[in-house]
Amino acid sequence: MNRFALLLAAVLLALTAHAQTLHSPSHKLALRFSLNALGEPTYQLDFGRRPVLKPSRLGVLIQGQPGFVAGLTVVKIDSAQQDETWAPVWGEVKQIRNRYRELLVTLQQPGPEQRLMRVRFRLFDDGLGFRYEWPQQPRLSYFNVVDERTEFNLPANHKAFWIPGDYDSNEYVYTTSRLSEVNTTRITPIQQRAETTTVQTPLMLKSDDGLYVNIHEAALVNYPALMLSVNLQTFGLGSHLVPGPAGIKAYLQTPEHTPWRTVVVSDKAPEVLASKLILNLNEPSKLTETSWIRPQKFVGVWWEMHVNKASWNYADVSNIKLADTDWNALKPNGRHGANTANVKRYIDFAARHGLQSVLVEGWNVGWEDWYGNQKEEVFDFVTPYPDFNVDELQQYATAKGVKLIMHHETSGAVTNYERRQDEALRFMTAHGYDAVKTGYVGRIIPRGEFHDGQWMVNHYNRTAQHMAERRIMVDMHESVRPTGLHRTYPNWLAAEAARGNEFNAWSEGNPPEHETILPFTRLMGGPMDYTPGIFQIKLESWNPAQNKGRQVHTTLCKQLALYVTMYSPLQMAADLPEAYEQHLDAFQFIKDVAVDWDDTRILQAEPGDYITTARKAKGKEEWYLGAITDEQARQQTVKLDFLAPGRKYEATIYADGKGADWEKNPMSYQIRRQTVTSKSTLQLQLAPGGGAAVSFKPAAK
Amino acid sequence: MNRFALLLAAVLLALTAHAQTLHSPSHKLALRFSLNALGEPTYQLDFGRRPVLKPSRLGVLIQGQPGFVAGLTVVKIDSAQQDETWAPVWGEVKQIRNRYRELLVTLQQPGPEQRLMRVRFRLFDDGLGFRYEWPQQPRLSYFNVVDERTEFNLPANHKAFWIPGDYDSNEYVYTTSRLSEVNTTRITPIQQRAETTTVQTPLMLKSDDGLYVNIHEAALVNYPALMLSVNLQTFGLGSHLVPGPAGIKAYLQTPEHTPWRTVVVSDKAPEVLASKLILNLNEPSKLTETSWIRPQKFVGVWWEMHVNKASWNYADVSNIKLADTDWNALKPNGRHGANTANVKRYIDFAARHGLQSVLVEGWNVGWEDWYGNQKEEVFDFVTPYPDFNVDELQQYATAKGVKLIMHHETSGAVTNYERRQDEALRFMTAHGYDAVKTGYVGRIIPRGEFHDGQWMVNHYNRTAQHMAERRIMVDMHESVRPTGLHRTYPNWLAAEAARGNEFNAWSEGNPPEHETILPFTRLMGGPMDYTPGIFQIKLESWNPAQNKGRQVHTTLCKQLALYVTMYSPLQMAADLPEAYEQHLDAFQFIKDVAVDWDDTRILQAEPGDYITTARKAKGKEEWYLGAITDEQARQQTVKLDFLAPGRKYEATIYADGKGADWEKNPMSYQIRRQTVTSKSTLQLQLAPGGGAAVSFKPAAK
Repeated sequence: MNRFALLLAAVLLALTAHAQTLHSPSHKLALRFSLNALGEPTYQLDFGRRPVLKPSRLGVLIQGQPGFVAGLTVVKIDSAQQDETWAPVWGEVKQIRNRYRELLVTLQQPGPEQRLMRVRFRLFDDGLGFRYEWPQQPRLSYFNVVDERTEFNLPANHKAFWIPGDYDSNEYVYTTSRLSEVNTTRITPIQQRAETTTVQTPLMLKSDDGLYVNIHEAALVNYPALMLSVNLQTFGLGSHLVPGPAGIKAYLQTPEHTPWRTVVVSDKAPEVLASKLILNLNEPSKLTETSWIRPQKFVGVWWEMHVNKASWNYADVSNIKLADTDWNALKPNGRHGANTANVKRYIDFAARHGLQSVLVEGWNVGWEDWYGNQKEEVFDFVTPYPDFNVDELQQYATAKGVKLIMHHETSGAVTNYERRQDEALRFMTAHGYDAVKTGYVGRIIPRGEFHDGQWMVNHYNRTAQHMAERRIMVDMHESVRPTGLHRTYPNWLAAEAARGNEFNAWSEGNPPEHETILPFTRLMGGPMDYTPGIFQIKLESWNPAQNKGRQVHTTLCKQLALYVTMYSPLQMAADLPEAYEQHLDAFQFIKDVAVDWDDTRILQAEPGDYITTARKAKGKEEWYLGAITDEQARQQTVKLDFLAPGRKYEATIYADGKGADWEKNPMSYQIRRQTVTSKSTLQLQLAPGGGAAVSFKPAAK
Repeated sequence: MNRFALLLAAVLLALTAHAQTLHSPSHKLALRFSLNALGEPTYQLDFGRRPVLKPSRLGVLIQGQPGFVAGLTVVKIDSAQQDETWAPVWGEVKQIRNRYRELLVTLQQPGPEQRLMRVRFRLFDDGLGFRYEWPQQPRLSYFNVVDERTEFNLPANHKAFWIPGDYDSNEYVYTTSRLSEVNTTRITPIQQRAETTTVQTPLMLKSDDGLYVNIHEAALVNYPALMLSVNLQTFGLGSHLVPGPAGIKAYLQTPEHTPWRTVVVSDKAPEVLASKLILNLNEPSKLTETSWIRPQKFVGVWWEMHVNKASWNYADVSNIKLADTDWNALKPNGRHGANTANVKRYIDFAARHGLQSVLVEGWNVGWEDWYGNQKEEVFDFVTPYPDFNVDELQQYATAKGVKLIMHHETSGAVTNYERRQDEALRFMTAHGYDAVKTGYVGRIIPRGEFHDGQWMVNHYNRTAQHMAERRIMVDMHESVRPTGLHRTYPNWLAAEAARGNEFNAWSEGNPPEHETILPFTRLMGGPMDYTPGIFQIKLESWNPAQNKGRQVHTTLCKQLALYVTMYSPLQMAADLPEAYEQHLDAFQFIKDVAVDWDDTRILQAEPGDYITTARKAKGKEEWYLGAITDEQARQQTVKLDFLAPGRKYEATIYADGKGADWEKNPMSYQIRRQTVTSKSTLQLQLAPGGGAAVSFKPAAK
């Protein structure tokens, strides 16, 4: 061995055993990367002196080759840092600071091919993001990901807020348990369940010493969704990627990278909600001209179907073929919600109360047997029912200054939607629609694909881009849960992708704690179209026979508070006009509340218990506050120091009434007004399952 | 038991044991339907006194219910007959007679649901067609076919001409063997192989006593292709349907029916080739205005890529992304065939020789790494390479009276094609294209689907319909093999779907018998784009280094004969212009030969050995004759009694030259002219692997 070889060996040894520590900008967090004796890359994360993640392995398994899991060597480690501020097109705040330190580790596969993979870490003061990257290289072009080895090894048996791993649905009630108690078998699966200890992200965790940890991902592009397999003994979390039909997780081509794996950490729960880490890890907007994108409130021909007052379908028949049916010859059932007269009623209501738009579901033919048959040709997205006059409604809405929102339910038949999407979007443009709610209820076609697999992820993203090219805003239901891509496609206003308010209409409902968990889980990735604003809490009044015992599991005031605690630029006033007309005083809050914000303050928050949030309306000196609680009554003391100093505001307080209770007396509320300043303090009494909403407007001078 | 019950029991017994015999219109064939003791429906078929099929079971297995296989009862049996004549838009003959007798058996499933299935038999003098039908009914709307029970129980160990069951490809050499010797293991699979005793249809069989039996299907719509599993001991053939990703064979909704299962029978081989049974079982044309559909001959920038004289791709790079590539910045490899100047050369050649059109492959970006990577975004179908000027070529071709044929290679990424198809067809219309060759090389996306499964069958049919709506003719390659749907969609001029001439360019080639088998197998379902007309038989002359030892496995004259023996309304003159220019005397036959016919006479035929066919050009008093042989030299005596009596014709005879031999001396030919009448007889000397072509034109008076 000559001297050069000796030197080289020494360097290689050093690199093999390489370990490097990175501190976040304010030194709140420390990341340590190292390669263990087996050549496995590992990382660990500390919050001050408290471990967030114990040493956890990294790696990706590739079909038909050694992959990037063990026997790796470190080729080099680069570092970088960033501190910039950017403005979202819309959002919870006007400006977002993106400040991190970065480590870029280049790893080499064992074997003669010398294939390279990089791990890029970005460490913020509020958490960590990292991803795998494959640069273009001579011996790696096309490759298939068989599995990901990424671990998140938690140091203790944390409390977890979880829903079961299901490749097709995230519309579950959250279970709160220790990690050691995770077991999804007692939860009825909605569609395709993974192993019984696999849970979905965002996963919210809390340690016994008060550390809040949120694990999710950012910028899910050309890759399946990440789920987490819990080791009930060690509290390690393993990666579980949603498979494709042949079991392969992702088909990739260099240069490529995975989504960012994100770990948001704080000892204060509100800071988790305030984190912009996931947005910062997404790419900037691909759209340069965005004036056509409008955060908005809307009503819709929708809840009346959920409460069995109307139907999506026009006729009551159970076996129909799209191509062969003469829709004009069908016998109408007399309960079809999306009829011209009824839609006009909603347009009138929206116009009268200053809401921007009206969603209409069930307008297009195919709803007679739209669900559950794994059928491909369910809808064509361009043919209205005989009682829905597209042109007449377009003119009517335009005259009233209201927009109609299109609805594209796919019934899971995505191949059908994709081949008709061009025509559907041209139809929208021709008829003045500039927003669409899409839906993916049921099993996916292409058969063998799942809602959360790579192919469908690409579909959602491609759809957002297609819509953007045509200046169309989109709200996706039953899609994969968001990962901050609304930064990149700001026309992607919202998604459902969790258990929405609608479950209160026809299931055992959502428990009162549900809305205190969602911001810590589902909403970490982006806005949710939760459809708040149900005033007629007891649903029997709409249809006593079919809605027996059904009700929304909140007080009326909590429904108001959700407009603030559940951030979305697209907020539905989900109840029927006739429900609002009986409570126009309370409805005033929905009319007033903003949907785009200069600033947001998470004042109080504990997952599963309560959230109090204040937000400043975009470009206005108005603030809105929402406070919600779980099934426990609470008194929340709110200091108003977020208000501009020295100014007087008229606060209108919408509070649970005396004896209010989500179950027994949900519709009791009281409205009071008082003048406040930044030095004032409000005492808010929240009923069991209750809430409070407050508007602050500059007082007349 | 009261008297009524007794009566009912007797009736039920009678129906359970029901047997009924149906004779074909001229009593050549007899079909016997019966229900056996297990309530299994069976059928048998006789040709005079000779059994064609022994009692064979019928039935369909349905997911999650008893299905329609056993315990069935006969509800009723209806009969009908038909005798009509119809005219195809184009074809081998001007008029087709559709004459059959029909039996419609209504069967009821055991169990309380009383679900119904019908079997409809149509018995022609040249064979049998039958299919399963499910009428609309209260307790059967959506159902999934798990398997089909249809049997074809042959009475003896027939000789069979077979290719292995492969869900993705039919591009195989035929094996000739006894049924007992079927074994696909020694044949290298192209893609996804079924069990080792499964073969594809059309399956050609010959009994030791000279009965010719062809089993295939007609009108393959919304169902997977049928393959046949051979029982090596009993000579029974079972049904093997191509599965979908979850193993389900077909997702159906009432009212629905399967394709027709067809059995063409004769004791004369030419009658099998002349059978119009499959066309008769297809639905009439869905197109009313068909003047834009033109049978045609074409040349193409194509063979020069196969013989390594040019490339499909523009640059020699191996890892490219459609969306991210600056095609103008790529370094051209200097061998790109689809460049403007070269295409003009083909346009000039087509115009000079009266050929209607020019196919151009490799015109659009994406060919750099188009194959084998299971990649979805390979082509966009609208972006030309920098050296292909769409507008200039459109103008140039129009000025010369020539049409360009579009090429849409999907690389198997059918989801990508479907979502771009609308735009691709608009592009075609905008640039004057009215015909397209589509291609499906490689594994299918949606992943888990196969070329011959239900989803892809629907894709091909939908594509034919989309094209028709836009007045576009289509030629599909790597599609499922045809089943007569060109009657329904006469814009669907041809398909490949078998092992074409191209295999001679880059594989062990096609054996000399290949073209004598194809009309008895693949062509039973419809025209094939076989791409005949290769004159430069020895391929080394194009590229000595890369084509070492490669040659077409016929004589030059056999290439001419194929224009007659291999019927297609779309015939390529597949060789390079410079090849034809060296043999313009022989090329005259290709210029002359028709592609649409008033009449066809199969004069001599034996599968695997020889075929002699004469056809009368549509609307002209011209006949064309082709005679081919396998590796054996033959003298064929041809009586010209098909010519109009009392007329004189000038016959131009293109015959193998002295010493001609497909292998050693393939390009030797001689051309002679003689005056003939309907009383003349021609002696045609066919060399080993050779052929002869004759044109008959009215002699000058």
